[in-house]
Amino acid sequence: MEKKCIGIDIGGTTVKLGVFKTDGSLLEKWEVPTRKEEGGRYILPDVASAILAKLQELEIAKEDVTGAGMGVPGPVMPDGYVEVCVNLGWKDTNPQQELENLLGGIPVRLGNDANVAALGEMWQGGGKGYSDIVMVTLGTGVGGGIIIDEKIIAGKHGLGGEIGHIHVRDGEKEHCNCGGVGCLEQVASATGIAREARRTMAALDGPSAMRQFGDEITAKDVLDCAKAGDAMAKMVMETVGRYLGIALAQVALTVDPDAFVIGGGVSKAGQYLIDVIEKYYQQYTTISSKKAVLALAKLGNDAGIYGAARLVLD
Amino acid sequence: MEKKCIGIDIGGTTVKLGVFKTDGSLLEKWEVPTRKEEGGRYILPDVASAILAKLQELEIAKEDVTGAGMGVPGPVMPDGYVEVCVNLGWKDTNPQQELENLLGGIPVRLGNDANVAALGEMWQGGGKGYSDIVMVTLGTGVGGGIIIDEKIIAGKHGLGGEIGHIHVRDGEKEHCNCGGVGCLEQVASATGIAREARRTMAALDGPSAMRQFGDEITAKDVLDCAKAGDAMAKMVMETVGRYLGIALAQVALTVDPDAFVIGGGVSKAGQYLIDVIEKYYQQYTTISSKKAVLALAKLGNDAGIYGAARLVLD
Repeated sequence: MEKKCIGIDIGGTTVKLGVFKTDGSLLEKWEVPTRKEEGGRYILPDVASAILAKLQELEIAKEDVTGAGMGVPGPVMPDGYVEVCVNLGWKDTNPQQELENLLGGIPVRLGNDANVAALGEMWQGGGKGYSDIVMVTLGTGVGGGIIIDEKIIAGKHGLGGEIGHIHVRDGEKEHCNCGGVGCLEQVASATGIAREARRTMAALDGPSAMRQFGDEITAKDVLDCAKAGDAMAKMVMETVGRYLGIALAQVALTVDPDAFVIGGGVSKAGQYLIDVIEKYYQQYTTISSKKAVLALAKLGNDAGIYGAARLVLD
Repeated sequence: MEKKCIGIDIGGTTVKLGVFKTDGSLLEKWEVPTRKEEGGRYILPDVASAILAKLQELEIAKEDVTGAGMGVPGPVMPDGYVEVCVNLGWKDTNPQQELENLLGGIPVRLGNDANVAALGEMWQGGGKGYSDIVMVTLGTGVGGGIIIDEKIIAGKHGLGGEIGHIHVRDGEKEHCNCGGVGCLEQVASATGIAREARRTMAALDGPSAMRQFGDEITAKDVLDCAKAGDAMAKMVMETVGRYLGIALAQVALTVDPDAFVIGGGVSKAGQYLIDVIEKYYQQYTTISSKKAVLALAKLGNDAGIYGAARLVLD
């Protein structure tokens, strides 16, 4: 029987699961709640029973499962050890080993969720056909994942792909969650874009379609206004695009991937967002005309299960 | 007989060569001139005869040579193809294939010289014992090499490790050689440090030991004055250290190596230089206390032959 692999994406609210063929086609996906009580001790048993029940339902034998990959929200050591996973309540644990025991014979591989999503986009998403991509996720924060030669660069201290905390903006006064000042995340996350819009509205006189939203303005509002031609919103997005362009240029001059894949909620703005980043990205990579291209992510919230499944195919 | 490997480092003036044991010990090193006339057509034949003569002299049979690695000053494709090597006059050539033919049976591997030097420092220099290092060479320009899992990240367009052209300085007016503005190289190369010193002397009143050198001041002069306690020279080095710290932080948050290895002429300033970079590097990596350390390169001009020899040991 054709081999299958399983992808697991553990989030703070739900666990997403998927059964895949090894060619990357998704057979079935579903979710179970993430039970975080008592230090998250029920999460892995829940995952294991969900998987074993699904395999039975689909009449897939354990021997026909290459493995189960799992993305978790926190740094992961190469042996699967997790020091701490704040969002899940996990501390000093090895979820890879534990889930492997619970699944009785199915090999398990663990990865950080942002890195795993990048692997998913390389495999079947916006980076399909490439071996080297950098994924940038513009959501509540700014996440990143570096894939070189089809493998995750997790880093020696779990900091691989932490590009949201690259310093890009001198003169910023507020502190980032990381303790730094002037991080990419402070200006290019959904939160950051909204804040930049509030600051711009406060600093400038004159009309703007953004003013109707007042202090409740969201990144989506800013992008909608900018796409509709509002001058002040476009000014905000030029600032955001410039810092993103600088950060991507820096990464291009470090690992030089085939492509950057831009995902997360903010990326729903589509080609408009790519264009505003691209202008500045080109400006800060004048050294060569041949360089990584910018592309949109394609898998949305499923990137995690795709990438997790891909983890076990090496 | 114990296996040997050969390292070749092709520079614009001389070719450095070395015969190594596979454990990394250097048996013999020597140089031949780089004959650049006629599009550099004599360079590889010169290299081949130098190697074959040396093997005869040392009574080493070809069968006992694992291979010869070669670093060249320009971008190298994975198959050894070189589109252009300005300093050598090479165009549209495959030096890997050509040297392999000339050496009759000894396998040849090619790499970019900055990347190869980084591999050398990982193998037997300032990064010995580590698998993941980033080398930063502060010379006339600023070069870089990224080694992850003991392998060079050359990049998909030859831009891997081009960290000298990372944009770090907003407000810079002069253009860099790459066409960009505000590149790390413009402030942290030997040339850049001297320029920063001239600018500072021109902008500020007051005495400084740097003034005795006038417009002929060198990076070494600036560093000597700073180490001797001169306030204005220390101010210059704080600026240099800040931008280097920012750039290293960015790279740490991208590939997260074990260590940064700082080499090149400027690094002769030793621990003083490391300390001034470290202060800012820490400031821009507040996200984690565990991160890459900063170290000095150890192999000097021999890094290239070490790394080239290491190329053939995979």
